[in-house]
Formats: sequence, structure tokens, C-alpha cells
Amino acid sequence: MKEVTPEVTIRRLTRYLRCLEFMSENGKKVVLSKELAKTCKISSSLVRRDLSYFGDFGVKGTGYDIEVLKQKIRNILGIDRTRNLIVIGIGNVGRVLLNYQFMNPGLRIIAGFDKDPQKAGKKINGIPVYHDDKLEEFIKNNNISIAVVAVPRDAVHEVVNRLVNSGVKAILSFALIPIQVPEDVVLSYVEIESELEILSYKLKTRGL
Amino acid sequence: MKEVTPEVTIRRLTRYLRCLEFMSENGKKVVLSKELAKTCKISSSLVRRDLSYFGDFGVKGTGYDIEVLKQKIRNILGIDRTRNLIVIGIGNVGRVLLNYQFMNPGLRIIAGFDKDPQKAGKKINGIPVYHDDKLEEFIKNNNISIAVVAVPRDAVHEVVNRLVNSGVKAILSFALIPIQVPEDVVLSYVEIESELEILSYKLKTRGL
Repeated sequence: MKEVTPEVTIRRLTRYLRCLEFMSENGKKVVLSKELAKTCKISSSLVRRDLSYFGDFGVKGTGYDIEVLKQKIRNILGIDRTRNLIVIGIGNVGRVLLNYQFMNPGLRIIAGFDKDPQKAGKKINGIPVYHDDKLEEFIKNNNISIAVVAVPRDAVHEVVNRLVNSGVKAILSFALIPIQVPEDVVLSYVEIESELEILSYKLKTRGL
Repeated sequence: MKEVTPEVTIRRLTRYLRCLEFMSENGKKVVLSKELAKTCKISSSLVRRDLSYFGDFGVKGTGYDIEVLKQKIRNILGIDRTRNLIVIGIGNVGRVLLNYQFMNPGLRIIAGFDKDPQKAGKKINGIPVYHDDKLEEFIKNNNISIAVVAVPRDAVHEVVNRLVNSGVKAILSFALIPIQVPEDVVLSYVEIESELEILSYKLKTRGL
């Protein structure tokens, strides 16, 4: 496997994984690359190329064992191990996250943090919520893979700085605010407005 | 402007827009392409190429008027007009959406829908919530650009079919479930788990 894989390829792998999970839920055991392509709405040739790029997973003609393929993709994505997550900001978005039913057993939210003392000490979906001032100590004492930032826009900058200073190496932000982080920290965004804009663009190209 | 622009380019445009909005908020009026590149963490050459691709917006050396550039990008994205949105499913995710503070005045959520009669008839953030059985009638009587689907996983399929049958042409789903929609309908996903997987992959490539 090459070290630098384009993000679009990795994004497709997560898509295959979602489709494979869906097939498993529906009792399917084996899938042909053309079926996977159809379900994921990605071209057959691209599916074959992606899968061969990461090593040959299937037997020609008989298709792929879905469980094996899921496990291979999880391994590539680094979620075949436990990834401890924390969520900072337990407002509407934070509550969505703490209640999220992950398909991957490896993704595990172990704590939430909020500035509001009323929220600290409670549990949401079995996950403890701590006061924000415990953040650094918690990060120091637990092996945190990813911190999810769901605080209001004007607090994002401060929270990200605290996370970086505490040694967190991966951050997912729910506000697309330009933030400078060191080279060794990966930062990405879940940004609803941009997704709506992309849909708007697609409508426009269709004259709508 | 070419009709078919790669989605990655459009995605970068939405990123420029977020950065420009951030600059406006901070009182900035003019931006050089290299400043925009640094703020957005996209290479200068790519920024210049993207902006020239959509027509020359700036004056060499003096930079871009931020308001003009924002308006141009909004025009390209088709959000210089009003886009009426509806949200189906007023659980945790639905509540996030109804409370969302869009930066673009063009994006306007005009109604929410839920199967729960307790939720119907109420307003969230000034937006009316109707009973799910009013969905088709509401779509018929209002000009809906985009429907956002935030219902539980097992209800996604049924809701998407109802939207398609009512003539909705753009759907944003919060569950990545494979759904077949007609060619003239655009469907996209906001999917938290995939974003976390991509971060996990990036950690893995760095030996973490």
C-alpha cells in the first residue's frame, strides 16, 4: 500500500464500507464488484481499481466475502483497533454525537466536555460529561485519537489551541473556521452549509 | 463556465466562501490570492487556477474585493437566490438543522416534518414543524429546492421515495444508506462516521 493515497480514494473506501455494512444487515454474505459498484453508485472499473490498489481481496468470478472485505477496509482505515474519541461542546451537535450509533465498533466516544456546570457530572447515552476545565487532565490520562469540536463558532479557536497543546493529533470541527494547526495535526470539517451549497450548484447546472 | 466542474473544485469554492465570510466578520475588505490560499490551507496556484477558471475576479497585485468575490462564488453555487429547504425528522439532528445559523441568506429552512404528533404544530427557532402526513401537500404548494432527511436509518428509504415522488430534485441524507434515485435527482450525504474514518486513516499513515 502506498503511503499517500488521494483523499477521494479514501472517501470512496468509507462509502464501500457503508454499503457493505448495509448488505451485512440485510443478510448478504458475498458481493460481486459490479454489485458493490451499483449499490454505491460508483463505476465498476473504479471499484475494481480501488480494491486492487489495496491488494487483491477477491476471487475472480465468485466475488468478495463481505466480512473479509469489511475487515480489510477497516484495517486500511485504521479502525480495526479502538479509537478513543472525545466531544467538546455538548449542545445540539454534541448530543447528536453522544447518541450516534457507530457501525464500527472501533470508534468509541469516551467522554464529553462542556463549560456549563449544569451539564458536567451527567451521562448521555452512558457517556460521562465533564466540566471543560478537566479537558487537559483527561487527555493526559487517556489515549485520545480524535477530538470532535462542537462548541459555538467564537469558541472554536480557543478549544482547538487547547487540544493541540494537549497533544491531540486529529480534530474534527463542526464549524468551518480557518484555524492554523501544526503540521503533525490533522484537522477536518463536517460542514452542513457547504454540502447544501454543493447541492445548490448541482441544481443550478440542471437549470433549477 | 463549463457545465461539468469536478466536485472537488466546487468543494474548494465553498471553502473559499467560508474563509471569505470569516474575513468579512473580522472587518477585512480586500484579499490577495496568496492570503486566501494560506487561510484556506489550499495552494496559491490552485486558488489562482480555481478563480481564473470561473472568470477573472481580481485585479493583479491589488487583490480581490471580498464582497464581490463572495457574491461571485454565491452566484456560481446558485445560492445568490433563495433556496427553500425542508427537514424531515425532528430528532437530535433535525433540531441541529432548525437551529443552524446559515452564513448564506439564500439558504432558508421553511418547515420541519415529524411523525410524532407531539412535535407537530410547534415552532423551533421560529420554523414551523408539521406532521409527516402533510409532507406531499407542503411540497406541492411550496417551491422546495432541497429536502434534508434526518429520520432514523430504517425510515430513510421510505422518506426518500416520498420526496422523489413529490418532485424534490435534491436530497441531503444524514444516514449513508444506499438508495436508488432517478437520474434527475441529486442525493448527497453528511456522514460523521466516514469523516472520522478518514481522520483515522490519516493518523494511521502517520504511525498513530
